[in-house]
Amino acid sequence: MERHRENPIITPEMVKPSNPDYRVRGAFNPGAIAYGDEIILLLRVAEDCPAQRGKVAVPIARIEDGMGRPEVLEVRLSDPDVRLKDTRGVVYRGIDYLSTMSHLRLARSRDGVHFEVEPEPFLFPSDPSEIFGIVDARITRIGDTFYINYSGVSPDGWATALATTHDFRTVQRRGILFPPQNNDASFFPEKIGGRYCALHRPNNSGFGKPSIWHAASPDLLHWGDHRCVLRPRETTWEEQKIGGGAPSIKTQAGWLQIYHAKGTGQRYSLFTALLALEDPSRVLKQSDEPFLKPEEPYETDGFFPNIVFSNGLVCRPDGSVLLYYGACDGCTALALTSTDELLRTLQ
Amino acid sequence: MERHRENPIITPEMVKPSNPDYRVRGAFNPGAIAYGDEIILLLRVAEDCPAQRGKVAVPIARIEDGMGRPEVLEVRLSDPDVRLKDTRGVVYRGIDYLSTMSHLRLARSRDGVHFEVEPEPFLFPSDPSEIFGIVDARITRIGDTFYINYSGVSPDGWATALATTHDFRTVQRRGILFPPQNNDASFFPEKIGGRYCALHRPNNSGFGKPSIWHAASPDLLHWGDHRCVLRPRETTWEEQKIGGGAPSIKTQAGWLQIYHAKGTGQRYSLFTALLALEDPSRVLKQSDEPFLKPEEPYETDGFFPNIVFSNGLVCRPDGSVLLYYGACDGCTALALTSTDELLRTLQ
Repeated sequence: MERHRENPIITPEMVKPSNPDYRVRGAFNPGAIAYGDEIILLLRVAEDCPAQRGKVAVPIARIEDGMGRPEVLEVRLSDPDVRLKDTRGVVYRGIDYLSTMSHLRLARSRDGVHFEVEPEPFLFPSDPSEIFGIVDARITRIGDTFYINYSGVSPDGWATALATTHDFRTVQRRGILFPPQNNDASFFPEKIGGRYCALHRPNNSGFGKPSIWHAASPDLLHWGDHRCVLRPRETTWEEQKIGGGAPSIKTQAGWLQIYHAKGTGQRYSLFTALLALEDPSRVLKQSDEPFLKPEEPYETDGFFPNIVFSNGLVCRPDGSVLLYYGACDGCTALALTSTDELLRTLQ
Repeated sequence: MERHRENPIITPEMVKPSNPDYRVRGAFNPGAIAYGDEIILLLRVAEDCPAQRGKVAVPIARIEDGMGRPEVLEVRLSDPDVRLKDTRGVVYRGIDYLSTMSHLRLARSRDGVHFEVEPEPFLFPSDPSEIFGIVDARITRIGDTFYINYSGVSPDGWATALATTHDFRTVQRRGILFPPQNNDASFFPEKIGGRYCALHRPNNSGFGKPSIWHAASPDLLHWGDHRCVLRPRETTWEEQKIGGGAPSIKTQAGWLQIYHAKGTGQRYSLFTALLALEDPSRVLKQSDEPFLKPEEPYETDGFFPNIVFSNGLVCRPDGSVLLYYGACDGCTALALTSTDELLRTLQ
């Protein structure tokens, strides 16, 4: 496991705002896939809008015209109905708002390290279930279709939605797969036992803590057979919650899943789990310690400190792995590893 | 709308405990259906277990042997890790427990008023997703199969699960349909536009309030196309949340849905909504005021006060409706009405 010496490889400064009134605050948590001789990332680009002195501005997508044009809710900081949560959220009249609005932006690279970020959004909020933003894409190739699942955020909660593309130029929305409150979903890249499978992360509060679940589908659009497969352990690194990452890598030993954990002090780190090839709802092994945790300055200090979070990787035919990860909800970094090295973290 | 003069028609005293160590605290929130010349209710039977002085006892289903035998967690009230929420819940070491464990119990009647409650459970917790209980059945007949959806509660949250029967003697579990946190689901009794449809209620916290959603399925086991259809209004009766009730009644004007609302002071009441026949995700009308609210002593005073909650009704060929409802999470009551009268609440 080696962090790339040019980290962070993508920063907000490399991204053109989607709108002249907006400011790019983050370019992070990319989905990733090999496409032709390129590596494609779908970045989460988070934007805010500068507010007048003494005010806070919240960007919201206005979707009435189907275009997802930006709208700004501006409220006074002195308003007793306004409460700032942290850098990520604002509470106004008892309702949560995000301080930034995210969309998905495509970036292309030949070497997997140096990326050109497209000047326009690839997928912008344009559904009522997305007016606070769309975040954290996972990309899975099945046949000649690329399935892009992501979380849409709105007053109705956050839910896992699907879009598909064949060429990364045009894209089609396919609706919500896992209703609120749900995120961190990923598909397995082939049918298992005659059906498609996915990991996903329903919320849990009170009775337990957010855990990783398994689901199955005949068509990737309708899902059932939901089962809880992996719960956070009562450890420093996992005690708050866990959630799945990029689509699992098929190895001879099993499906290799890299998941994130939120532990004490809201620190995010990365773990590995191994799932049975013939039944990925069965956990074979799980690493005891994170193989990547916030240590470098870009991982410990930023928009939201102490986060490493991965939802995109590329596994090459020789077993080498380009592991992309978001750092501090701000920038994108790269770690170089291999399936062998990741499997060793399970021993 | 007329409350039956013999209300409440079913009380905990009429129900034999599932286990000699248990005490029946509630027999309420029944699913209902006409079956042959009988009316069948599937009651939620809630049981607790007496604790030694100074202690609180929490019933939990032990499912290792597949039998769902009872287990009791007994903790001292003086334990600083113990906090009583209300009559319905206990918090121990930061984790929520229910003060009662529920199962589904069958009751039969010829006249719809006088019921014989079976001495044994019909469906008892027997899956890891049910160890805190199973609650609030809805029954839908499609073809010659009766679909029974209910909520299973466990440390992994509460989720909507399915069981099926052909004879109300044997029953088959079909897994979780809507992952946590989800309840208040009901199926439409026929395919609409070539697919099965359901209402369900995902949780929402922070961004908004729990609302009624629509989903569609090719097979009643795998669900997709989730869309939010009805959100709570900022009124005294709805301000906290809303959720669907029994399967909708087909009328010439549309699908008639009776839903519950939780308002100021945790008071539950019943409303009507009318959904488009060809697309039940489209709301045509909604009543402005509850047509039933807690007023009678058995509705205002009980295990948890000020609740009327319905998840079961029988609509007869002449349009008369037997509306069963739980009162105060304790007993079962009956209101006599008709589709015409319910449709008039929408004007």
